Amino acid sequence: MDMRERLIESTRELLWERGYVGTSPRAIQERSGAGQGSMYHHFRGKPDLALAAITRSAEDLRARAEAELSGGGTPLERVVTYLRRERDALRGCPVGRLTQDPDVMADPALRRPVEETFSWLRGRLAGVLAQAQAGGELAAAPDPAATATALVAVLQGGYVLARAAADAEVYAQAIDGALGLLVPAAPPRSR
Amino acid sequence: MDMRERLIESTRELLWERGYVGTSPRAIQERSGAGQGSMYHHFRGKPDLALAAITRSAEDLRARAEAELSGGGTPLERVVTYLRRERDALRGCPVGRLTQDPDVMADPALRRPVEETFSWLRGRLAGVLAQAQAGGELAAAPDPAATATALVAVLQGGYVLARAAADAEVYAQAIDGALGLLVPAAPPRSR
Repeated sequence: MDMRERLIESTRELLWERGYVGTSPRAIQERSGAGQGSMYHHFRGKPDLALAAITRSAEDLRARAEAELSGGGTPLERVVTYLRRERDALRGCPVGRLTQDPDVMADPALRRPVEETFSWLRGRLAGVLAQAQAGGELAAAPDPAATATALVAVLQGGYVLARAAADAEVYAQAIDGALGLLVPAAPPRSR
Repeated sequence: MDMRERLIESTRELLWERGYVGTSPRAIQERSGAGQGSMYHHFRGKPDLALAAITRSAEDLRARAEAELSGGGTPLERVVTYLRRERDALRGCPVGRLTQDPDVMADPALRRPVEETFSWLRGRLAGVLAQAQAGGELAAAPDPAATATALVAVLQGGYVLARAAADAEVYAQAIDGALGLLVPAAPPRSR
């Protein structure tokens, strides 16, 4: 991995673990092994490097979701696959986490990839839910856009509750609860 | 308000806005108007003061939820009242927000009120959902504990999505989506 990549990947990790205000240029240099001169050769400063890191995390989230939501199976099966994908619940979401960073939220350039990612995800999931309704797999009544927003919220809030409890099982329970409402007849997840 | 109270309230605000790592003793002194000597007269240091502030925020969250969940109306009506209570969606939850603070999560004393609050809330809501099932207001099928965890997750994740979009309406949409799944025949919220 070249130094530019190492700087981006180290910044992604630090933003995930410590947030923006907790991620100092010195910490980035220490984790990446880059000297101060190298960091400022590749990036204008911490906001510029953070933007590259946040953009990368947002692209990753989107690519994984798209792979599952456009993958095999019926529309409803793809929604369930997406929701039940094994996640590192106690680490939380590297993109959702940024919404708690006041410096990221206050900077339009840094907030943009966060906003676009969740806007895309809610819309993409709503589309697959609408397909599931059209195909008779789901009841026609609830608005797919609102349902999609609620389901993405369950994922993001599931991380919050799992971290509060220091127990990844709480995350799984939130997903189970949501699926129990979405598909009353769904089989329980295998344990 | 005496100085001890002002220190606690100022710390609550700063933890909500900036998080633990972003809340310096100097910022607490500036916001509260306390001198350094006064702060260390009342509290042993930042962790001690943060514990008082977090405990207070946790007690507030619990008292408001309890008032709604034990208030008037049928069990289902009380759940809907709780979920639809007007919240400052873009500020987010002062307790849930702490789960993104690595220093709070790493300190068992600081994490305890966060853990206890959400554990209590999930259990309390599960109890009211079970009452709603027993009274025939809700279908008997989904497990009330999992449903309760999913609904609390929707609230917490709704804040994440509203902040990402800089739009409180996204929070309202997440609640609408959850209620649409919980009570397919529920009337839409008044606008």
